[in-house]
This record gives sequence, C-alpha cells and structure tokens, in this order.
Amino acid sequence: MQRIVTFGEILLRLSPPSHLRLTQATSFDLYFGCAEANVAASLAKFGLPVKFITAVPPNELGESSLSMLRSFGVEPFALIQGKRLGIYYFEHGASERPGKVVYDREDSSFSTLKKGMIDWESIFKDADWFHWSGITPSLSQDLAELCEEALEVATRMGLTISADLNYRPTLWKYGKKANEIMPNLVKHCDLLLGGIDESEKVLGVPLKEGDSEKEVFTNWMKAYPRLKNIVSTHRMRANASSNAVSASIWNGKELLHSQEYNISHIIDRIGAGDAFMAGIIYGLIVWPEDHQTALEFAVAATCLKHSISGDINLATVNEIKALMSGFGGGRVSR
Amino acid sequence: MQRIVTFGEILLRLSPPSHLRLTQATSFDLYFGCAEANVAASLAKFGLPVKFITAVPPNELGESSLSMLRSFGVEPFALIQGKRLGIYYFEHGASERPGKVVYDREDSSFSTLKKGMIDWESIFKDADWFHWSGITPSLSQDLAELCEEALEVATRMGLTISADLNYRPTLWKYGKKANEIMPNLVKHCDLLLGGIDESEKVLGVPLKEGDSEKEVFTNWMKAYPRLKNIVSTHRMRANASSNAVSASIWNGKELLHSQEYNISHIIDRIGAGDAFMAGIIYGLIVWPEDHQTALEFAVAATCLKHSISGDINLATVNEIKALMSGFGGGRVSR
Amino acid sequence: MQRIVTFGEILLRLSPPSHLRLTQATSFDLYFGCAEANVAASLAKFGLPVKFITAVPPNELGESSLSMLRSFGVEPFALIQGKRLGIYYFEHGASERPGKVVYDREDSSFSTLKKGMIDWESIFKDADWFHWSGITPSLSQDLAELCEEALEVATRMGLTISADLNYRPTLWKYGKKANEIMPNLVKHCDLLLGGIDESEKVLGVPLKEGDSEKEVFTNWMKAYPRLKNIVSTHRMRANASSNAVSASIWNGKELLHSQEYNISHIIDRIGAGDAFMAGIIYGLIVWPEDHQTALEFAVAATCLKHSISGDINLATVNEIKALMSGFGGGRVSR
Amino acid sequence: MQRIVTFGEILLRLSPPSHLRLTQATSFDLYFGCAEANVAASLAKFGLPVKFITAVPPNELGESSLSMLRSFGVEPFALIQGKRLGIYYFEHGASERPGKVVYDREDSSFSTLKKGMIDWESIFKDADWFHWSGITPSLSQDLAELCEEALEVATRMGLTISADLNYRPTLWKYGKKANEIMPNLVKHCDLLLGGIDESEKVLGVPLKEGDSEKEVFTNWMKAYPRLKNIVSTHRMRANASSNAVSASIWNGKELLHSQEYNISHIIDRIGAGDAFMAGIIYGLIVWPEDHQTALEFAVAATCLKHSISGDINLATVNEIKALMSGFGGGRVSR
Amino acid sequence: MQRIVTFGEILLRLSPPSHLRLTQATSFDLYFGCAEANVAASLAKFGLPVKFITAVPPNELGESSLSMLRSFGVEPFALIQGKRLGIYYFEHGASERPGKVVYDREDSSFSTLKKGMIDWESIFKDADWFHWSGITPSLSQDLAELCEEALEVATRMGLTISADLNYRPTLWKYGKKANEIMPNLVKHCDLLLGGIDESEKVLGVPLKEGDSEKEVFTNWMKAYPRLKNIVSTHRMRANASSNAVSASIWNGKELLHSQEYNISHIIDRIGAGDAFMAGIIYGLIVWPEDHQTALEFAVAATCLKHSISGDINLATVNEIKALMSGFGGGRVSR
Amino acid sequence: MQRIVTFGEILLRLSPPSHLRLTQATSFDLYFGCAEANVAASLAKFGLPVKFITAVPPNELGESSLSMLRSFGVEPFALIQGKRLGIYYFEHGASERPGKVVYDREDSSFSTLKKGMIDWESIFKDADWFHWSGITPSLSQDLAELCEEALEVATRMGLTISADLNYRPTLWKYGKKANEIMPNLVKHCDLLLGGIDESEKVLGVPLKEGDSEKEVFTNWMKAYPRLKNIVSTHRMRANASSNAVSASIWNGKELLHSQEYNISHIIDRIGAGDAFMAGIIYGLIVWPEDHQTALEFAVAATCLKHSISGDINLATVNEIKALMSGFGGGRVSR
Repeated sequence: MQRIVTFGEILLRLSPPSHLRLTQATSFDLYFGCAEANVAASLAKFGLPVKFITAVPPNELGESSLSMLRSFGVEPFALIQGKRLGIYYFEHGASERPGKVVYDREDSSFSTLKKGMIDWESIFKDADWFHWSGITPSLSQDLAELCEEALEVATRMGLTISADLNYRPTLWKYGKKANEIMPNLVKHCDLLLGGIDESEKVLGVPLKEGDSEKEVFTNWMKAYPRLKNIVSTHRMRANASSNAVSASIWNGKELLHSQEYNISHIIDRIGAGDAFMAGIIYGLIVWPEDHQTALEFAVAATCLKHSISGDINLATVNEIKALMSGFGGGRVSR
Repeated sequence: MQRIVTFGEILLRLSPPSHLRLTQATSFDLYFGCAEANVAASLAKFGLPVKFITAVPPNELGESSLSMLRSFGVEPFALIQGKRLGIYYFEHGASERPGKVVYDREDSSFSTLKKGMIDWESIFKDADWFHWSGITPSLSQDLAELCEEALEVATRMGLTISADLNYRPTLWKYGKKANEIMPNLVKHCDLLLGGIDESEKVLGVPLKEGDSEKEVFTNWMKAYPRLKNIVSTHRMRANASSNAVSASIWNGKELLHSQEYNISHIIDRIGAGDAFMAGIIYGLIVWPEDHQTALEFAVAATCLKHSISGDINLATVNEIKALMSGFGGGRVSR
Repeated sequence: MQRIVTFGEILLRLSPPSHLRLTQATSFDLYFGCAEANVAASLAKFGLPVKFITAVPPNELGESSLSMLRSFGVEPFALIQGKRLGIYYFEHGASERPGKVVYDREDSSFSTLKKGMIDWESIFKDADWFHWSGITPSLSQDLAELCEEALEVATRMGLTISADLNYRPTLWKYGKKANEIMPNLVKHCDLLLGGIDESEKVLGVPLKEGDSEKEVFTNWMKAYPRLKNIVSTHRMRANASSNAVSASIWNGKELLHSQEYNISHIIDRIGAGDAFMAGIIYGLIVWPEDHQTALEFAVAATCLKHSISGDINLATVNEIKALMSGFGGGRVSR
Repeated sequence: MQRIVTFGEILLRLSPPSHLRLTQATSFDLYFGCAEANVAASLAKFGLPVKFITAVPPNELGESSLSMLRSFGVEPFALIQGKRLGIYYFEHGASERPGKVVYDREDSSFSTLKKGMIDWESIFKDADWFHWSGITPSLSQDLAELCEEALEVATRMGLTISADLNYRPTLWKYGKKANEIMPNLVKHCDLLLGGIDESEKVLGVPLKEGDSEKEVFTNWMKAYPRLKNIVSTHRMRANASSNAVSASIWNGKELLHSQEYNISHIIDRIGAGDAFMAGIIYGLIVWPEDHQTALEFAVAATCLKHSISGDINLATVNEIKALMSGFGGGRVSR
Repeated sequence: MQRIVTFGEILLRLSPPSHLRLTQATSFDLYFGCAEANVAASLAKFGLPVKFITAVPPNELGESSLSMLRSFGVEPFALIQGKRLGIYYFEHGASERPGKVVYDREDSSFSTLKKGMIDWESIFKDADWFHWSGITPSLSQDLAELCEEALEVATRMGLTISADLNYRPTLWKYGKKANEIMPNLVKHCDLLLGGIDESEKVLGVPLKEGDSEKEVFTNWMKAYPRLKNIVSTHRMRANASSNAVSASIWNGKELLHSQEYNISHIIDRIGAGDAFMAGIIYGLIVWPEDHQTALEFAVAATCLKHSISGDINLATVNEIKALMSGFGGGRVSR
Repeated sequence: MQRIVTFGEILLRLSPPSHLRLTQATSFDLYFGCAEANVAASLAKFGLPVKFITAVPPNELGESSLSMLRSFGVEPFALIQGKRLGIYYFEHGASERPGKVVYDREDSSFSTLKKGMIDWESIFKDADWFHWSGITPSLSQDLAELCEEALEVATRMGLTISADLNYRPTLWKYGKKANEIMPNLVKHCDLLLGGIDESEKVLGVPLKEGDSEKEVFTNWMKAYPRLKNIVSTHRMRANASSNAVSASIWNGKELLHSQEYNISHIIDRIGAGDAFMAGIIYGLIVWPEDHQTALEFAVAATCLKHSISGDINLATVNEIKALMSGFGGGRVSR
C-alpha cells in the first residue's frame, strides 16, 4: 500500500446556507479545505494512509481544521504558529449566477512557513508518494522555496511526485510570475494535472494556435522529462447548476479519453479538481498498467464530488466503481 | 364513499438535511412513513375515510408516528407493544449519486405481530377496501401468516383488495423466497401494482424473453383469476435529480398508457410508488368505468409526489386534476 | 443622476424553508417585498437614489419592513398608521408543482391610504422619475384615486413616469374592472411594462386574433400617446424549476428582441418582473439612445433574479453586465 | 369518561427562534393555539375525548391548524369560511425584557361567526362538559351572542360548564365593557378561573379594599349561584425567565392552597393558564371529591407547561403525577 | 436634537449557534459590531441622527456591515479600501464556562487608516457630539494619530466629546502603552466611561490603595479639567449566565449610584458596555440637569442589552423607560 | 505519559433541538457517545494517547461514530460486525421537567461481542491503563465474560485498572443481578467511581443505616483489596436546569472533599459522570501524590461539562485549571 504525503494550506470556508448570497447571510456554513487537504482527505477516504503537512494557528480554528482531517483518518502534521487561519467565503452560484469566492487568506499561519522549518526527511521516511499543488508557491517566495526544498528531499528519497498546476492568476501577487517559479518545481514531477491554457503561463512551454492536447502534452514531456503521465479535465456546457465533465490522460504514448458525465444538479463544485486528483493518484496506484481504468476512476470521482457539499469528496471506492459500472443516480441504493 | 383499510409497518425516517451525506450529518430531518402508511395518508388527503392497522412501541416515537397519521385524518389502529419503532436512514441522492437507504428495522414492534393478535372482523366491519403490500410478508413468517389471515377475512367479508408487490430482495431474509409466499396472498387481490421483472421472482409466473407487458399481465390474470386490474409504473432516463415517469393499466381487455411527465428537479423520490398506488385506488373508485382517467390521475399524483419532501404525497385532488388538465409548474398559483 | 420615487405596498412574505409545502411548515422564512418596493430596492442596489412611498403599521413588522429598505439605501417615506402589515404566504414550487401564493393583505395599513394624505409635491420636489404599478389601483377605489392624484402631480412637475401593468384578476375585488380604472392612470406614462393579453382587460384596447406584438403595441401608443417605450417579457418552456426568459421593447419605430436565457434551476421566481422593470428603468437612464442595450440589461437582470432568494434582485450592475458579456454561471468568480 | 367540548378561536403564532427580537427575525417558528384550543389539546393529551368548535379559512393555514389539533386526538368541528386565520406574533422575553405579543387577529374567519351558524344541539349530544373563555365574547357582539346561545343550549342539555375569565382589556374594542357582557354568560358556569382583580371589571362584583380572596370568591358565589368551584393562579417573584407559581380553589366551604413551584428557567410561558385550566377540569373529573388533589394536579400541570415550547401543554398525566409526588427535574428519566 | 458622530472599526462577529463551542460549530451566526458602531446603532434606535465613520473593504462583507448600520438608520461614512473586514469569533459562555473571544482583526481595512485620509471638518459640520473609544488608538500608531486629529478638529468646532476607555491589554501591541497615548486624547473629552482599575494604566493617574471611586474620579477631573461627567459600570456576582449590574456617575459634585438589576438569564453579554454608553449619551442629552435619571436610563439600557442577541442594543426608549418604572420581565406585553 | 485503553459501546444519540420534546421534534441533533467513549474522548482532549475498543456495524452510522472519535485524536479499534448501531433518544429537561432517555440499543453490533473475539494482549501491549464501566457487563452474559477476559489480561500485563460502576437497573435484563457479576470484575480495579447506594446492589457489600461514606468505602476496600482510590460525586439542590456538584475521594487514609460548584444554567447534563471519571484518571496520573488536586481537577471538569452540548467534555486542561484557580464564567476570555 502506498503511503502518501500532501503539503499545503488548509482554509476555513464560510458559505451562506442554501443559495443565499453573501450579503443575505445571517449565518455561514463552515467547512475546512483547500486543494492539497482535499486530496489528502479523499485518499484517506479511499483507504490509503495519508499525512498532511501544514501550519495552523494556536486557536480553536486551527484545532478544528486538524480535527476535521483526523476524522477522515488523515494524520495531520501541523506547525502550530502564526496568528490566523486563512479564510475563503464561498457563495454558491445557481443557473446563470456564477459561484463566487472572496479570499481572506493573507497573513495566515501557513504563510509564515519558510525553508528549514519542516523536517522533510523525517516526514518522508515512511512515505511513497508526495503531492503538492501550484497554490503553495503562488503565495510567497518563502513558500515557493519551501516547496522546492520538499521536492528536492522527496526526489532524493525516491518518492513518486504529483502536482496539480492549479493556476489562479489572482494569487500570484508577490512579484514573480508563475512561469518563473513553477518550472523548477514541476521538473520533479512524475504526474501532472494541468490544462492547455497553462502551458505558457505556468510551465513556460510555448503554445501554437491550434495545437492539439496531444501535441501540447508531448511538448510538456519534452520540457519535463521526468513526467510519466499528464492528466487534464474538461468541463463543458456549464452553468452554475449543471455541466458535463470528462478527462484525458497522456502517458507519452497514447492520449486516452474518459467517458463524459452529465451533471444536471450541482450541489457543490468546489474541490472537483481535487477529487479528480485524488482519483487519478488512487487509480494509478491500483491499476498502474491500466491507464484507462485509472482515468475512468478519476473522472467518476470528480463527477460524484459535484453532488457532495463541502470541499472534500466523500465518495467511496465502491461508490465510484458502481458509477463506472453504469449504476448512476437513477436508482435508490437500499 | 369507500372506506379503506391499509395494514403495514410505519417507520421513522431519518435524513440529513439538504443534500448532506449520512456521514456529514449533524442533524437528521424526521419523517414517518412506509408503503402502506403512505397510501393511507394520501387517500385521507384525498378525502376518503381511512384506517391504518399497525403496531408501535409504548414510547414517544410510537406516539409521534400515530400523531402524524392522525394529523392527516387517518384513523390509526395500533397495537402498543414491542420495544422499538423501526428506522430507516435515507440519504438524498443528487445527479449521479444515488439516494441511499440504510435499514434499521429489525426487532421492531411491528415484527412482533402474529396471527390471532388482530381482530380483523371488527376492523373490516365498516370497510369496503383493503390494501396491503409485499413488504409485510417479506419481514417474517409470522407476518406472512398474519397477512394471509387478514386477506381471508377480507375476502370472506367481501372487501375489494389491492396490493403493491413492492419486491425488495434484501428484505426477504427469513428463509422463504417471495414466490413461495406471495402467490397465496396475491390470489385474494382485485388490483395489483407490479412490474414485469417481478413475474417469476414474486408471482411465480414464468417470463419468456421478449414478452410484452400485455403478454405478461395476461399470464398474471390467468394465474390469479380474481385480478381485475394490473397497473405498472415506468421510470426512464433517470438520475437522482431528474427523470420521466409514466404508467400503464391492464384491465384484461386493453393495455392503456398514461402520458409521460418529465420531472426535472426531484425533491424527494421516496413514496412515489405509494403515491401512485393511492392515486389508482382513488381513481378506480371515482372513475370505475374510465380506466384511462384513473390511470392519468395516478400518474399525475406520482409526478407531484417527486416535488414533495417526506414519504407522503401531500398533493390534493384539485392539484392533481390541475396537472392532468395541463396546468403544471410553469405558473404561480395566486 | 436620476432620482426615482416609487409608490406602493410592502408586504411581509412568509415561506416554508427549502421546498416544504405550507402545510408542512414548522417555520417560515421571512422576507419583505412587493412590486414597487422590489423595483425601488433593485434600483438602489444599482446605485441610484430612490425613495419609496408607503404606509406601515406602528409595530415591529412595519419597522422591520422599513429597516430592510434602508439596508439597501432606499429612503422610505412611510405613513405610520393602520393596524397591520399585509402578508402573503409563498410556497415554492418544484418541477410540475406550481408555486403558490396565499394572500392575507386585506385591511392593511396601506389600504387605509386616501387622496390628500400624502404631500406629493414635497416628495417629487427633488425627483426625476416616478414608478407605480397596477397592484395599487387594484386594491381599492381610494388607492386608485390616490394613484391618480400622484400621477397628476408628477405630470405637472415634469417627472418621467413608468408603470408595470401587473394585472392580477384576483386582486380587483372592489367593484371596478381594471379597464375602468387603468386607462386614466396609464395615460400619464412614458414607459409601460405589459403583455398582449392585458390589452383589453387592462388598457381597454381591443385585440384582434392573430395581432402581432408590434401591432398591439402600435395600438397602445395610439391610445396612450404619451408612451415612448413599451416593454414586455416572455417566459417559455416553463415548469416551476426551469424555464427560458426573453423580452422585447417597442419604441414606436422598432420592435427589438433580447437574447433568450435558459434558467435551468430556479431559486426564487417571485420578483422576476420587478427585476426586469428596475433593469429597464436603469437601462433607459444609462443608455437612453441604445434601446437594445437597455433591454439586454433588463433581461439579464431578470435572469439573475431567478437565482436569488427573496423578492428583491440583489444582482449588481457589474454582475448583470458580466452576464450580458457572456460570462454566465459556468465559472467560479474568484 | 367525560366528553368535553371547547369553543373558541385558533390562531397562528409566529415567533422568532431562540431569543431573537421580532425586528431581528429572518424566520419565524410556527405554532397554533389560543386559550380554548390549548385547553382542548391538553385534555386530549390527558386521554379524554374532546371536540373543538371553531371557524377557519379555506386555505392551507386553516387546514394546518386543524391538522395540529387532530394530531393530538382532538376532533375539530370547524366552519370553513371567512378569509384569514388570525395571527399573533410572540417575542420571547428574557430576564428583565418582557415577552411581547403583537396581535393581528381582526377580520379572521372566527370573527365572522354569528348566532345560528352552529348546530349546538348536535354538538352537545354526546357531550358532558362545555368549556369557553372570556376571549370569545371580547371579540365582537356577534360572538358574545353566539357564546350566550351555546351556553343556553348547554345548560338546557345538562352539561357541566367551565370558563376562564381571561380578561385582556385591549381586546374589548367593540363598544361594550366586559362587565356588560360577561355576567350574562358566567351565570351558566359551574367552574370559574379568575382573579380578584377581575371582580369588578369582568363580573361586576364590587371589591372592597383589603378583601381577601375568600371574601371575594364568596361574593362571586352569591352573585353567580350556579358556581361550584372558583380557581385562581398566583405568579410571584417573576421576571421573563423565572418565577414561582401556585394556585387556590374555593369550593364554597374551604379555600385550599396548592404548593408553590419555583420555575427557574422558563421555556415558554404562553398557555400556562390554559394548562392550569385543563388540569383543573381533569382534576375535578378524576377526583371530584378531592379538591386538594385536583388543585395540585392543575398547578403541577401549569408548572410543567413553562418548560414546553408552544402554546399547548404536552405534559402527560403520568408526568404531572410524578411531579406531584416530588420527582421534579433533578433526575434524568431513563 | 443632537446630531452624533462616532468613529471606529466595525467587525464581523462569528458565533456558534446555541451554546456550542467554537470547535463544535458546523455553522456560525453572523453579526456585525464593535464598540463605536454599537453605540451608533443604539443611539439611532433611540431616534437620534447618527453618523458612523469607518473603513471597510471593497467586498460583500464590507457592504453587509454598512447595510446593517443603514438598517438602523445610521448613516455610515466609510472609506472603501484595504483588503479585509476584521473578524472576531465569539463563543457564548454558560454558567462557569466563560465566553471566549478569538480576535482575527489584524490587517483590516480600518487598520489602513491614517491621518489626513478623512475630511473631519466636513463630517463634523452638522454634528453636535463626537464619540470615540480606546479601542481605536490601541490598534496602531496611525490610528492613534488619526484619533487625535479628529479630536482636535472636533474640539475646534465645538462638539461635545465622549469616550469609553475600553482598555483591553491584549490589543495594545504596537509598542506604546495605553498611558503613553490615551492622555493626549482623553484631554478633549467632556464625558468619560471608565473604571478605577484603568486609572494608572490608561489615564496615567496614580491610584492609592483604598481610594474610593469618588477620590479616583476627583483626581481624573483634576488631570483632565475638561471632563464634566465620569461614569462607571459595576458587574457583580457574575457567572456567564447571570449577574447583577449597576452604575455610578460623578459630575464633580456628587457621586450618584443607580439601582442594581439582577440579570438571571444572560442571552448575550457582548456590547453591554456600549449599550450603557449609548444610554448615558442619550440620558445626558435628554435630561441634562438630571444626572440620576440619565444614569438610571443608561443602566436600564445595559440591563436590557443582556437579553438581546448580537452586539447591538435593540431596546427602545419606551422599553427602557418601562423598566425604569418597574415594569420588568415578569409580565407579557400584549 | 500514560497510554490509556477504554472499552465499551458507542451509541448514536438523537435529541430534539432547543428544548423541544421528543413528540414535537421535526429534526434531531446528532451526537455519538456513551460512558467509556466519553471518557476516552475527554482524555484525548487532555492530550493523553487513548485507544477505544468497540464494535460497530458496517454502515455509515458505524463509520461516523469512529470518525467522531478520531476527530478527538482517539484511536478507535472497532470490530466491524453486526447489524446496527445502538441509539438513545434524549429529550432535554428544563426546570421541573426531567430530561428523558429512551433507549433503543438492543441487538446492536456491540451486543454481538463475545469472549475470544478481541486480541487483548495486542491491544494492551503499549498500554498503561485500562478503563471500563458497569454498563458493559449489564448488557449480556457474553459481554460480562468478555469484560472479565479483558480484565484478566490487563491484570496479567500489569495495567492500572479503573471502573465507573454506572449502575442503571433498567439495563440489567439478561437474568443476572449486578451483584452476581460485578464483584468478579471489580476485584481487578485500582480506582473506582461509585456511590453509597451501589454498595449492596452492585458490589455486594452490605450497608448499615447511617453508615458514613468513609465507613462504606472502608468496607469496599476490605472487600476489594486491590482498590487504591474510591471516588464519588454528589449532586444537590437539583432541577433540570440548575444544581450544585461536588465530589469526594477515599484513598484508604483520608476522605477528601472537593469544593462545590453551583451550576445555574445547565446546557447538557449527559456525560457529567464520564467527565468526572476522565478528570480523576488524568488527575491521578498528573498529581499521583496530591489527591486533593486530582479531585479538584475532576470536579471542575464535571462542572464545565454541564455547560457543553453533547456527551463529551470539550473542556481543556487549561480551562479546567482556570476554573480551579477561581476564574469562572463571570468574565469574557479575550
């Protein structure tokens, strides 16, 4: 069984109940999550042993974020320092009204982390796989360097490494562009989740107009020779309440496509990418030679995430396999 | 006016609010219901006099289940015995995530019932119609025998008898197969709700591949000559949030088909079959010669049930008739 | 910047939460609104200075209705008199179950208003635009006369005047028909929101079978020569959960049509017409020469209203413009 | 077993949840109740057969009020007429902030009732006891006359008659004073709940300064010779969250006093008097010769009501007897 | 009528519902408030014209905080700048478990304010009274200087000035002690709310052991000769659910004491001091010569605040006067 | 640091919100807990490493119960077997209305456990302390034998052993009396929580009338010579909302008494004994020579538990120490 480590920030999410707007709220529903924590929790739900590395403040909010992770069986390793847990407010969208995220994550405990603060060798000692995302290096130079430090140790210790590019332009505010920082980190990766439009801006790999996904990913593999698999998700015909999702995987030889799922009633779209990421990690661990099955697992996982409140995919391996086998939402499971 | 008696178990249903999963719940919404109780309450809502025969424990949960029935105008006749009210946990599905029922109904007060405990003659004295379902005989040999006892008395006293086959394989756990028990009970029925796939497993009537609904129901009428009408519902293009429903009736001469309703946003699917059953009982009482209208009433009733929270159809006769007349959800009724 | 005055009743709305029916409710969600108040609040949300003229009782419910308006920046001018705030109960529909309004608005404080009670000259002193709707004159002879009084003063003082015909047959109960009262009021209007089917019943303008919208509106302009623009909304393929909306404007020369929006998941349909009305008022103020843009703004506004709980459109000018530019609900705004 | 009839209005009660003020509410908790309905429901909870006579409008609110009564086993007899169900808003008090009632009950369905509308002979045919309160005759001359009509029939048919004076000065608005109307009604009573301060204003019996309760009640019996028992409740050291209650009974010979209960944490004070009234009716039926026990039952009933949300006392006979025996809230009942 | 200006930060308050602890919360109730905003809202509730000067971020949280103030009739004047609205988490206490505040207010929009950013002369043009508190200068050197700037302008323009010392040691983190900053600000004040234990730490006025309140306040008046009144509140026999409050006022001649209120069931203790402050400002405006009445008004106001959820005192002048007249929570106001 | 193992059943608790009665509930709040689980979670909250041994069914309810434990940092060791998680319904009491427990725990997964199913040696390998309670052996002969097996292994492996007698007569239903079973188990204990009234019924140690606590406990130590400490809690002047608690410890030499705490507003009384038990275990570990301090810690812990919703004491070591030092609920902790 593969032992996985993920590293990133965990945020408090505050959402008005039902479909109320932020300005209508008299209460907020409370969740915890963010990219790498969501991946960790989903993998733990799949039954894998997972550690999550982060920093939280010495107060009740920090404590609750760790309790939530523990409740899934994730083993959190958190520096208890700094002054606040980052927050994001999330307003659910509906039909033609888009969902809205208001970040309030600056000056968080996680943002106080720096190179040298974390004993990566000890953390990676019993681990097989390390996952990170492009969120962390976007937050500060210190975090980018800490990320690099982790990647170097993980590489040295022989871990499989995966990343979700997760490019959010509004987060890169400390003076560096994504493509000044990310290449040095991505070069450590075996598995990458990204999309064509991140080629130049994140990976520094030029795009020609009309390039197919296969051509782009071929170029990525040239630029980052350690890459063994590149995965990508596709969202179509979307409004805030319904859309269709599918995905593809490029393993250097074939570009495989998943089936497409229509999702007619989205409950919560946040974390859909992280659900896919956890799905593909699990898939490639369980079916290392069967990329199609791994991909179908991941896209069925992300499909189910859209029906689940909060940031974290609560779908089990059995539920995902049932959907893969064609047993979707049309019946009641008794 | 026909006076109706239904007999069966009433369960406590516990559901997480909104679309939360069972493992996310910090509270449960509380409903009471189950097949025959749902039929009883819907018929009372239609204005018919209805008695419901059951057993509940001598505690607050038992008391509440009866209060709920009384609030609809159903007259409950309940033995107060045994130790617990059966429970089922229901997690609402969404899109491709199926709804989920977790039963916790064993050792309930209802399961303590046996032949001889209920004075059927007194109960049926003022009654015209008796309705039961395949849930009850699935629970225990004692209940199957009690069911038979009721049917024999009802037959003797000249009541019209209807049944919903309601075949749920996971419930038949006491050592008998459905088709060892049900034929002896179904032979008392005038009206049956069932589907082709229940032919062999429940009624012991063999199916040939490619048999049409008409052929199958013709065979059922041969095997069960008391049957005057067989009704069946059809669910199509379904996920957990939307589908289409229609129905058919076989009266021994014609197979009539209802219109089909698209249900684009399901609020609560539990009890849809019971809403249909109540609808067809009402329909056949009010329009005994007009099977098409009776069927349209029943399918419009089940259509509306999908928009109503809880197990019980709260649609009124006027609301159902309005939908039959083409006035659906597109306007606001002021 | 145009300063706007609207005049009408504000009601307490009581709705069961989620999709519960009125008879299931153990609590009611509480909103305040009604046609002209909704227009006022939406215009204030757009940044315009707005006064709302009404009457409320001297109790907490009256006070809360005014606080709500103030929270939007509307300046309420309310006579504090009479004994109760009018109420309407609203049950959300779903799929084929229509939404339902139960009025309990008689004998309200607003219904005690009469000619001579309000100092219109002082109210209109700093105002540029007056908006009213056909709800007010439907409620009583006194209110119809008060409405006329207001319109005469507004005309005399040179305000632009708009009206929403808002014909609800069940409200006209005091012995006059709409077309006995409305023509005398509508003759003061520069802008009208109405539909073909209101031609005879409200405006007293005969309809010939097969008349196109253009022909009907041409007749309206003949009958009411002060009219400069007539707008109309169109709702198609509707059930209680989804439909499509579009709109048209007739400026005496051209009949312009807006794009059509599919609204797949309606959160709250009440106030959609008022959202359109506020949109077209804003649109014609900001783009007085560009009727197409004004119309597109109004229909995008009403589209977004369907995604917002309560009677009032909380969409901002920027959100509406984003939707007009093609950025709908398919993405998450971060 | 005594069969009881009560007659009065049933109101919708709307209360902000927790201890929110009316002006803070974004939702209202919904209860139904009012004096005579509360007495009816409590007596049904005690196991007695009870009818409740009233009028409700032909809408969902009327329907729900009757469903609530039915859920307790009360048999409602309601004229379905008029246009609205009366409402009262109730804001819970706390400590030194008093609870607050805002009435919105005018023009209700009940207020349309008149002499001749109700077939009292048929209603009283199977009844032994009739209960009414001073609320009904306070609402209109018509209702006062209807009340008198009921009392005359009840007297003629030999029923025991009880009344709660329930004097609320703000309700007597139709031009008559309480003591112009009530004496003619009270003269039919066998049992009366009232207090010294109601002597002149309600019963027209003069008070001398310093008169003891015994002297006052002696005078009442002289003025109303049919009276067999007069009961009175006493509330002491009260703030909105805690107080002490006791009661007394005058049977023409002795003035008996109950024990006093300290109620340290009031959950809901509304209906405390009605709980007492139901308690004393039950007490005098069960222990007709033991006025002390009857009184202790009634005061224990009212004590428990303070711990129960809503207008209706949900305490059972066994719970009340347990409290009478000294088993109060200090233990957990397992 | 006195026109009042208050200046300070407005925070988002997030509290678990009921008495849940922060670590148990799955939702937070949402309020806005903080010292000077609470005073502003309470004074507006009393009917006085009030402006509140602050800064909020350009997002929904900022917008909601201003909407809340507007709903009370407060006119907010807010710079829209900076990146976040400050937050405090509040866990209600109970019995021997103290309430708990977790601040997350650093780097708020308000903390970006500096001298020169606000046009005090324009703000004070129509004003009579300026109120500030010791919270603002505790937050940063810039805010202390801005506070001084405001005070100098207010003094120059002849406004009456009041302050609440509001000493919270944990807030003074920027390197200055309270008594290095506050004296220069307090010297502008006509009215001060403070307690003996703030003498040295805040005002720099030495305390001798055993000094009476009168002696201490006499020394304060010597040190700050502009002071006309000093008020102080006293909390006794307190646990988190109940206590007793009283207050005193020193006007340079007499030390007057208020009556003491027992508050047996605290609903929300936050803002009790601000309720008192608003009460004494109102009291001294309305009864400028009757300090005893002004003081009794203020202490009755703070008493009622303990019964009201949220930071803001919703008690009206009439409710406060009723309590002063002895009509407390023991009755129900109908 | 002592590593602790507790063993017992974990139940689902369903409670109506606020102070609603069971028969009023339309939703239930959901907690998990029961004696030994509560002790485990509280000790984990204190920072000790804790394992909890139990059995749960293979469904979502079982899974959630373990997630809850994990969220506290408890390491659950659960056999996944049987068909249901036991339930108890809990209705909060208020004032003179007692709280009420309705058990529905028969046929639970835990009740299927038998001797030989659990590998105690492996579980106790890294452990120092074993805690059990009298609930487990009350449930079945099998569980009593399993308990004995555990105790024999624990004794053999040298663990410290503690028990809470927790005598609930209604649970002993399998044909044995408590004092036929418990002595054989208690003889393994070093620490016992019990009360005088359990002497004969549970321990088989005769009581003489008038025996002091010291005399009784002296007799217990004679009968059970392994006992080193006996602790007991005392509840006084109790109603359902308020009472006073204190405790005593007998160490064979001295009977020490704790201070008494008045708890004026009980939030949730369930688990108060378990909070004490966890407190005394922690206390005796941390202050092995200072029994007074250990006792004061335990009684302060139980005092705080009364202010916390749910079965589990969420008070931290620091909060308990603060209360021991006299800092109770009278202030707000900022």
